[in-house]
Amino acid sequence: MSQSAYSDLCARHQRLHRLQHLQAIAQWDQSANMPSKGNEARSLAIAEMNGLLHQFATDPALKSLLDAAAQEPLDAVKSANLREMRRQWRASNALPQSLVEAKSLALSRCEHAWRQQRPANDWAGFAENLREVLRLAREEAQHLADASGLSLYDALMDQFEPGMRSAEVDRVFGDLRAWLPGLIRDVQRKQSGEQVLQPQGPFSKAAQRALGEDAMRLMGFDFEAGRLDESVHPFCGGVPEDVRMTTRYREDNFLPALMGTIHETGHGRYEQNLRREWLGQPVSLARSMGLHESQSLSFEMQLGSHPGFAQLLRPLLVKHLGDQAAFEPGNLYRLLTRVNPGLIRVDADEVSYPAHIVLRYEIERGLIEGRYEVDDIPALWDEKMMELLGLDTRGNFKDGPMQDVHWPAGMFGYFPCYTLGAMYAAQFFATMRRDMPDLDAGIARGELSRVFDWLKSRIWEQGSLYETPELVQRASGEALNPAHFRAHLQARYLG
Amino acid sequence: MSQSAYSDLCARHQRLHRLQHLQAIAQWDQSANMPSKGNEARSLAIAEMNGLLHQFATDPALKSLLDAAAQEPLDAVKSANLREMRRQWRASNALPQSLVEAKSLALSRCEHAWRQQRPANDWAGFAENLREVLRLAREEAQHLADASGLSLYDALMDQFEPGMRSAEVDRVFGDLRAWLPGLIRDVQRKQSGEQVLQPQGPFSKAAQRALGEDAMRLMGFDFEAGRLDESVHPFCGGVPEDVRMTTRYREDNFLPALMGTIHETGHGRYEQNLRREWLGQPVSLARSMGLHESQSLSFEMQLGSHPGFAQLLRPLLVKHLGDQAAFEPGNLYRLLTRVNPGLIRVDADEVSYPAHIVLRYEIERGLIEGRYEVDDIPALWDEKMMELLGLDTRGNFKDGPMQDVHWPAGMFGYFPCYTLGAMYAAQFFATMRRDMPDLDAGIARGELSRVFDWLKSRIWEQGSLYETPELVQRASGEALNPAHFRAHLQARYLG
Repeated sequence: MSQSAYSDLCARHQRLHRLQHLQAIAQWDQSANMPSKGNEARSLAIAEMNGLLHQFATDPALKSLLDAAAQEPLDAVKSANLREMRRQWRASNALPQSLVEAKSLALSRCEHAWRQQRPANDWAGFAENLREVLRLAREEAQHLADASGLSLYDALMDQFEPGMRSAEVDRVFGDLRAWLPGLIRDVQRKQSGEQVLQPQGPFSKAAQRALGEDAMRLMGFDFEAGRLDESVHPFCGGVPEDVRMTTRYREDNFLPALMGTIHETGHGRYEQNLRREWLGQPVSLARSMGLHESQSLSFEMQLGSHPGFAQLLRPLLVKHLGDQAAFEPGNLYRLLTRVNPGLIRVDADEVSYPAHIVLRYEIERGLIEGRYEVDDIPALWDEKMMELLGLDTRGNFKDGPMQDVHWPAGMFGYFPCYTLGAMYAAQFFATMRRDMPDLDAGIARGELSRVFDWLKSRIWEQGSLYETPELVQRASGEALNPAHFRAHLQARYLG
Repeated sequence: MSQSAYSDLCARHQRLHRLQHLQAIAQWDQSANMPSKGNEARSLAIAEMNGLLHQFATDPALKSLLDAAAQEPLDAVKSANLREMRRQWRASNALPQSLVEAKSLALSRCEHAWRQQRPANDWAGFAENLREVLRLAREEAQHLADASGLSLYDALMDQFEPGMRSAEVDRVFGDLRAWLPGLIRDVQRKQSGEQVLQPQGPFSKAAQRALGEDAMRLMGFDFEAGRLDESVHPFCGGVPEDVRMTTRYREDNFLPALMGTIHETGHGRYEQNLRREWLGQPVSLARSMGLHESQSLSFEMQLGSHPGFAQLLRPLLVKHLGDQAAFEPGNLYRLLTRVNPGLIRVDADEVSYPAHIVLRYEIERGLIEGRYEVDDIPALWDEKMMELLGLDTRGNFKDGPMQDVHWPAGMFGYFPCYTLGAMYAAQFFATMRRDMPDLDAGIARGELSRVFDWLKSRIWEQGSLYETPELVQRASGEALNPAHFRAHLQARYLG
């Protein structure tokens, strides 16, 4: 008696999961540890593995196995797993292997060079590599669009946020553009009379690292299944069984590293709490990048910038950095919610952050659709920064279009996920408040486990069992509703 | 027109080299970084990759390609490369894939558990895992012996020191056994009247790490192509393009970490100086484990314990650890050459070290040949430690048979390489002294590059171009001659 097509598919995905484990660790190491002369060999090794994984994912036997499995009696979890297997199969088979390999190589080179070029403000050097990355991304978008019938940009975005379309993003971001500049002005006016004490540095890297690790413990991170290291651009990588978070330190200001670490801890806990018994199968995976960002923003913004959280943070700051008047909870809260539009997305406050996303979305969509070229980016960037945030960024490429890892890493279509995530997070916390009326008082008392339990059962453990709209509906009782995000900002910043 | 069989083989080996890169980094990470809960998934990932690499290495097409390539016109380098390809092919095809995978899994589990069991002195727990490792090693030895016609132990040793046979080891080690105990006694008697100042600790881990890195720079290590980290058992891993060395620190004594680091630097420079243009092909690889150890011992013993080297070390010690009377060069030299038989192989002095190797060789050979079982190890260990070094090790498993990574890592047949390496190193330095009569005075003046240039051109850059006996003959003008090692010890310790 032959084994079922479904179990054959499961064994193949198990194998991919194991090989991707090595790839994930090698990629983390490339950012966190690798010396410069190792890069060429590492890039070739990763490209070789990408080619191999692509070969497995495009095995001609898969099509008939997927069709045969659809005829087998499967329970709800297995059916969802099969749906996700088919999604991966469609994505993999849209791209020729030569493109997969060329892309892997170009990205690895561009990202590695970017690590030197960014501090040197070397736009010309960066642009040369980015042109090749963009050329391949457009080629990729064309293949994905041909296979899916989506537009070029939607085809790329669909890899990160399945089901999201630029028409929907236009609607939501158009709404944002209407009220965000006014809200930023109102908040700045309200905050202009506030006294805020600045913490006095320097803060040693070692003390900041210990502080970050204690904050991760407070947020429930499992250090037996992950670690915190340093890299130029913070990220959360590794594998669900061994989460590798990174951050970066500035000696004059501990807040970027601390809040960045709390942000990545949200990603990390999502991965650490994916359902163990499904690991290795597509149904186990985090649902979408927007939902992933909703977790990091739940940690960084909903919780991390909550007035009650400042009370929990204070003893950690005193322990690792010594006592300062600036660490008084009221002052800390004012520091964490200070709205001050700046050049750097990852350092942006919760209110001006969406403006950074709108800017990037408009530029990258134009790049993919062929309306813009790499050489147009600096002028577009300058124009939109002035228009959206009133800031002059001319000639400052390192704090302008070179600040993010996304484009050198070829991740066009990812940026909208951040602001979609902020909206999901606001919606989830609105639901929690409805279910648990004393939620805010509980946060100040350190009762964070109620929040984590809610997220764990409704989001983390659900993996990819449901498609995004159904998961959001089940978790919050309604579809994505951006009004929750606006209400959250108004209550926190103008309330 | 079809490509040549030889170039087809080269492309296949290039691919293996790239995939093994990921495997090497994952294995380094497993020892240097990985948290405990990551181990199961890591072990499965590494086993999956080992299975895949084995599958490529046993592709049925290889046999006819190897035969066809032998008919093609090849220059000396390509001929040597083809010879090494055939050697790898024979070794890979001797083992069934199921055994390769089972072994990878058992080793990974045993080694990971050993990291907890050793500090806990948990012999019973360790023995349980080691029994499975030994069972699989015996199975492996049987397959290799069947394929090569060698005896069981020789078949394993041949993987590390191609061409070496236990009859030869018996001869060399038998000679050692005859004069070593007497030499140790003579040296101890001579040294008993010496005054040696002990450095006063504690020495912080951070200071020791910076000292180790400066010592690596002094020894020519390229930090753009490698790094130094920590692990329970020091090793030199990674890839030639990105060498990953590890060490371990004790706050009460900086010498074990420093001299261990200098030892691993010898391995590291051999790897960093393998010929770039051959990388990815078997001819590029370091010749044998005995020759690899000859390089680490050239660094640690021939150079690192040289009286002139103590003068180079002093300013580094003062810089990182502060000034102490104990760092005076004469005292440092007496410290570094102090003969004091102890329980730990890696901390052993140059004179008593071979006794540790003879003990391990006799036990592991008996284990593989079925004369001993895992449960016999403690009694054998106790008996031989008493006989060879006069030390009582009863009940102290962690400083006894649990001290080395080799057995939990399944590396039976490796230990003889250490003492063969010490003999090669003594022979190479005898040759250098013949060619450069002022070598010793030059070392005290910091003229280390003459030594490194000699090793680079005669050993490192030769890769696997010649088989071991020819390489040793070309480098030193004669075959392996253990008289040089004895003469070296007598001159240094009784001269």
